[in-house]
Amino acid sequence: MTLGMTLSTAEAITSAALEKAVELKLKPLTVAILDAGGHAVLVKRQDGSSIMRPQIAAGKAIGALAVGTGTRWLNANAESRPHFVNALNGVSGGAIVPVPGGVLIKGESGETLGAVGITGDTSDNDEACAVAGIVAAGLVADCG
Amino acid sequence: MTLGMTLSTAEAITSAALEKAVELKLKPLTVAILDAGGHAVLVKRQDGSSIMRPQIAAGKAIGALAVGTGTRWLNANAESRPHFVNALNGVSGGAIVPVPGGVLIKGESGETLGAVGITGDTSDNDEACAVAGIVAAGLVADCG
Amino acid sequence: MTLGMTLSTAEAITSAALEKAVELKLKPLTVAILDAGGHAVLVKRQDGSSIMRPQIAAGKAIGALAVGTGTRWLNANAESRPHFVNALNGVSGGAIVPVPGGVLIKGESGETLGAVGITGDTSDNDEACAVAGIVAAGLVADCG
Amino acid sequence: MTLGMTLSTAEAITSAALEKAVELKLKPLTVAILDAGGHAVLVKRQDGSSIMRPQIAAGKAIGALAVGTGTRWLNANAESRPHFVNALNGVSGGAIVPVPGGVLIKGESGETLGAVGITGDTSDNDEACAVAGIVAAGLVADCG
Repeated sequence: MTLGMTLSTAEAITSAALEKAVELKLKPLTVAILDAGGHAVLVKRQDGSSIMRPQIAAGKAIGALAVGTGTRWLNANAESRPHFVNALNGVSGGAIVPVPGGVLIKGESGETLGAVGITGDTSDNDEACAVAGIVAAGLVADCG
Repeated sequence: MTLGMTLSTAEAITSAALEKAVELKLKPLTVAILDAGGHAVLVKRQDGSSIMRPQIAAGKAIGALAVGTGTRWLNANAESRPHFVNALNGVSGGAIVPVPGGVLIKGESGETLGAVGITGDTSDNDEACAVAGIVAAGLVADCG
Repeated sequence: MTLGMTLSTAEAITSAALEKAVELKLKPLTVAILDAGGHAVLVKRQDGSSIMRPQIAAGKAIGALAVGTGTRWLNANAESRPHFVNALNGVSGGAIVPVPGGVLIKGESGETLGAVGITGDTSDNDEACAVAGIVAAGLVADCG
Repeated sequence: MTLGMTLSTAEAITSAALEKAVELKLKPLTVAILDAGGHAVLVKRQDGSSIMRPQIAAGKAIGALAVGTGTRWLNANAESRPHFVNALNGVSGGAIVPVPGGVLIKGESGETLGAVGITGDTSDNDEACAVAGIVAAGLVADCG
């Protein structure tokens, strides 16, 4: 029932993402890995990451799954047609966070395996860690 | 801001809880560790654990924190005065799962550090794993 | 707009209620004082009172105001006709806690000035403190 | 479980904040002090402060805790990237009020102890009172 995403793969993505954060000297992060059905497989909040970060991280990941591409696409849409992103917020029950850092996780043949959402530093840095984690696990990142 | 509960302690509790599950040959589990303020520090869903398990695990942990003792106490109250437990569900926005398996994590001097919620097998087995994890980390378990 | 209940009266009720708790050697309490419109005037959570106590205390007080008498009446109704109390929970958006400890605050001529809700010890002890606070402020307590 | 914030410290912050309001001749205020986990420790609504002020005050304080800095930062973000602040509102269940007046309370070593939210006058004046209260208690204010 962990659709396309095993706990061990989620652990590998998360560890590599957090190593990248150390390398880039980022602020404390929170990482959420969701399976292809949008359900949490792994959530980690580093010491000092603020209290609502788990919801923000999951909101980025669910945003990516909601539209089938990374949240950089949603961020652009929030500027070009905000009424669409507002509506997505509505139909999702307020679950989506449309800023970079939600990245779709794909297999070699292009199938969606899940998504990772990271938050805590700038959106660009959050996304860089997500991509590093996905690539380290031998998978394909779709940032949007 | 991971109040009273570091990520490394949460990892230690979770690992020991899942080892206990292997020993007891339980079904796939989901573990949620919340800090003392009720915010997720670590969530792990094992392969094959069903999709709403993260919410159930967190709901047991938040239930323990809400009333200041493990959810075995809430389970007993649900039988003796169901209107109180129904009301708790209401004031918490439906966040509480009042069955055994939500265990308060206390330090040596009795201070609350957080709570663990486990779900996937019987409530008694879920709770046994939670206690095993807390004890392995050198902390004190309050089952209610 | 603090209908019938000034902050200074709320402070007086709360102080006397918490002095009663010291005298009875109760566990840490949370006190909520609402005005006659059901809006908070004063909320105090003592050190060690668990995290959802503010909602529980307010839920007792709003329950008293909802039906125009103390929550001891709601507690009895929860046993004699649970469907009514369930329905009250529904129409209130889950805001009501129907156990003793929510006490209506009345003036000398019988007018409702507000309500106090207390939680943290047994419901009977919570209610005893609420009554002590109201009486000390020269007002009339209606427990239901 | 009043994480990082005792009731006596909350009383000291609130008293000093309300003295500042007298000095500045402000309108009636409502003050909410939350612990580091976002749970109310003390709420005071002055006579004449309107009925939804407790939720607004708490919404400023929870906003500060959610992102780990004062709500002046959220106010700036609401202008530069409104879709992010809208999303925060969604993932928080509508709990956040992103205007100045929610100030993080930190200890000498930089650890977060809680947050204060004040509302009733202009946002700038609300914030000035919050800072005055925190400083009077010997703590460090982070306005964002």
